[in-house]
Amino acid sequence: MSALLAQLRAACGDSHVLTHDTPGADLSAWEQDWRKRSRGRALAVVRPGSTAEVAAVVKACAAHGTSIVPQGGNTGLVVGSVPDDSGTQVVLSLTRMNAVRALDKDNLTLTVEAGCVLQHLQDVAEQAGFLFPLSLAAEGSCTIGGNLGTNAGGTQVLRYGNARDLCLGLEVVTAQGEVWHGLTGLRKDNTGYDLRHLMIGSEGTLGIITAATLKLYPLPAATLTAWAAVPSMEAAVQLLGMAHHTLGPGLTGFEVMGQFALSLVDKHYPQLRVPLFKDQPWCVLLENSDCESEAHARQQFEALLETAMAAGCVTDAVVAENIAQARGLWHIRESIPLAQAEEGLNIKHDISIPVSRIPAFVAETDALLEREIPGVRLVDFGHLGDGNLHYNVQAPAGADGKAFLRDWEDQVNTLVFDQVARFEGSISAEHGVGELKAHKLPSYKDPTALAMMRALKQALDPQNILNPRKVLA
Amino acid sequence: MSALLAQLRAACGDSHVLTHDTPGADLSAWEQDWRKRSRGRALAVVRPGSTAEVAAVVKACAAHGTSIVPQGGNTGLVVGSVPDDSGTQVVLSLTRMNAVRALDKDNLTLTVEAGCVLQHLQDVAEQAGFLFPLSLAAEGSCTIGGNLGTNAGGTQVLRYGNARDLCLGLEVVTAQGEVWHGLTGLRKDNTGYDLRHLMIGSEGTLGIITAATLKLYPLPAATLTAWAAVPSMEAAVQLLGMAHHTLGPGLTGFEVMGQFALSLVDKHYPQLRVPLFKDQPWCVLLENSDCESEAHARQQFEALLETAMAAGCVTDAVVAENIAQARGLWHIRESIPLAQAEEGLNIKHDISIPVSRIPAFVAETDALLEREIPGVRLVDFGHLGDGNLHYNVQAPAGADGKAFLRDWEDQVNTLVFDQVARFEGSISAEHGVGELKAHKLPSYKDPTALAMMRALKQALDPQNILNPRKVLA
Repeated sequence: MSALLAQLRAACGDSHVLTHDTPGADLSAWEQDWRKRSRGRALAVVRPGSTAEVAAVVKACAAHGTSIVPQGGNTGLVVGSVPDDSGTQVVLSLTRMNAVRALDKDNLTLTVEAGCVLQHLQDVAEQAGFLFPLSLAAEGSCTIGGNLGTNAGGTQVLRYGNARDLCLGLEVVTAQGEVWHGLTGLRKDNTGYDLRHLMIGSEGTLGIITAATLKLYPLPAATLTAWAAVPSMEAAVQLLGMAHHTLGPGLTGFEVMGQFALSLVDKHYPQLRVPLFKDQPWCVLLENSDCESEAHARQQFEALLETAMAAGCVTDAVVAENIAQARGLWHIRESIPLAQAEEGLNIKHDISIPVSRIPAFVAETDALLEREIPGVRLVDFGHLGDGNLHYNVQAPAGADGKAFLRDWEDQVNTLVFDQVARFEGSISAEHGVGELKAHKLPSYKDPTALAMMRALKQALDPQNILNPRKVLA
Repeated sequence: MSALLAQLRAACGDSHVLTHDTPGADLSAWEQDWRKRSRGRALAVVRPGSTAEVAAVVKACAAHGTSIVPQGGNTGLVVGSVPDDSGTQVVLSLTRMNAVRALDKDNLTLTVEAGCVLQHLQDVAEQAGFLFPLSLAAEGSCTIGGNLGTNAGGTQVLRYGNARDLCLGLEVVTAQGEVWHGLTGLRKDNTGYDLRHLMIGSEGTLGIITAATLKLYPLPAATLTAWAAVPSMEAAVQLLGMAHHTLGPGLTGFEVMGQFALSLVDKHYPQLRVPLFKDQPWCVLLENSDCESEAHARQQFEALLETAMAAGCVTDAVVAENIAQARGLWHIRESIPLAQAEEGLNIKHDISIPVSRIPAFVAETDALLEREIPGVRLVDFGHLGDGNLHYNVQAPAGADGKAFLRDWEDQVNTLVFDQVARFEGSISAEHGVGELKAHKLPSYKDPTALAMMRALKQALDPQNILNPRKVLA
């Protein structure tokens, strides 16, 4: 392998090729996934500084039959961006490629390199008077290349779509080390197969995204947040329909949170003062973005909530009076994952179901789990507007979390995923497949779709050197 | 071929397999494209009534190595849905598969078969209180399968995206006659490669779309239309930016029309009474969709137009007082293609350019053409909000149209497409490639992208039986 390492060093410079033999080098940040579920061992970590260097790295690896694991901020949740433990894979980190190449105000586009941190892009857009709406918990460290590679979701999907919907063009290095120059800023381009959408969400298994042209939106004049207690999941779905009707595209967030999930926030972070959760099984967080004024947004919100209360689908509600209060409400929502971790280990699911079927799914699946595991506690929350639930299963009160996971994780996964399949849902709504769920696809993915996926992988990466065993086990 | 015909008849029933030997049969409606640029000869026209029948037809054809031309409403503009003249291809018409399978109000989805006529789907949605926003000139006869196969655009792309952006799931018959059951109604699904977007826009060359799950939107409370005269294309672009800022997602239409294009409407259809076009080189048609009320929409529009006039980017404007006036303004816009046909033959282009570069593109390309062809007349109009121009080149006044096309078509196409390439645009914004532009792709498409397209075609349709020579010549 020393010949390959020499080529990589020639391509990127000695200081940007790290191996376990590099004096003082600690590769663990690149070898370990964010949730610490897997620790691999890399042959080398390579940090190219340009698209041409990425292409040279891929060509060298292809010539040696060495596989490549592309990596951005390494914040993924499905073990998609870390090497296996063979010591033979090259981690290709894109973080040095972090230039903003262009901002086109009249075309409403932003062209950036893959290694740009998401929050930085949000800031660049805002400073120019625009909104780049992709927003998710890891935004302070995830990169746009990783967001596109995994088709990230987050809290603004309801209005602006997933990461793929915010991307107009890509620059990609293929498995052969060729560069596809596809950084178009066009809203319409029907000159052949949509390679952009094929690359987005392929988790680095079909090509390596090195840059992207993204959509910008006008900054809203005002963004308001409301919090409503609802008597049932059916009522939450009814409220969602009313909100679509009344607010139209102003509805930019619709999060649902179960009573037990909120009680954990209340228990572990009492200073956050969770409102309205004690009397009703669910609360909803709504966001209204208005291009006119705060007064107009407030009037729209009040009209919605009055109608909803009259219809009985909201029992009580508050509208944040100022930005600090709005941030406080979002902070409660975002603290649920932390609060459940404080409470102990749990079995997490990132699933989606058609919105209309979520009430029945939750009722049935809750009942099945409670029958199987007496005392089980269900931490349900998520992006109801997108049909996306984080449906997490916590050990009974007082039980040992590790023993619970050991004894129940496989069974619970199977039970939940079988229910998802019965309700025509997805076992991975926004987190992707990675290595963690690759072995689940044969059970839950349409077999014709899976056969097509294998054919596409074989066509674009016949050597199977791009992130092997991710997505397709 | 009689063995194949017998199998097709067994699959679909005798009356749904038409050949030139069928007594009284006239296949011209299936063999001739809409703009009458190409007339082929089919071995047979097969009209399956179900997905299973489509699969059986494909399996039979695959076994015989016979190629298939999928066809919907046959309204395409690039010769993508008619057979060649060999007499060996089977036209597979989807028009009998026209059931609406489901409308899910809470999930905001509509699941329909490929042969549904677009206008019918708009009506079904509206009757249920929703908007299906895809809208284009052929909506009375085009089918949703064809709209998805070609990724149709139209007049609402600015707000709602192209056909691909309105589709959540697909049912597809592969080149092997297998059925991919992908009719998910999910807003988030990250379980592998996005086969949906790969099929959409592939013009029937990678699979046959038999059904789709589409997105619905709330019906706006009011839709208003305005017409503004602008002193330059730069001013039109400036007005677009202001409209994005003031109206936000309420801006659902932004069409630009050149003075000569409008003068043709005025000349050939004086009863339409084209407003405000005589003193300025361009007019703009704006549409504002409001979820609140007509009064609110009007107030927003007036605020925008006042600001724009103060800034000098609008010289005069009218807002339609009622629906009849609004339809009248749209009718003028939609009459441009008819008026230019009345005036004589012309060379049409469906191109897109980044919005910011359109003023320079038009100025430069107009000048180049005027230098090459003294007296040439340019019929420019299109969806400026999407960067999509219908940039049409009309013979000098009094010249013979046929002679003009014969002498100039190739040269003009090359000049315009070279300019498009220089401005990083697309030579087919919304009409697709078909047979008409397939031979242009090698000159104007990124070579790495083209190589990937060929690899994907080979992977999914190794026999090359699905719409051969369309898209990839």
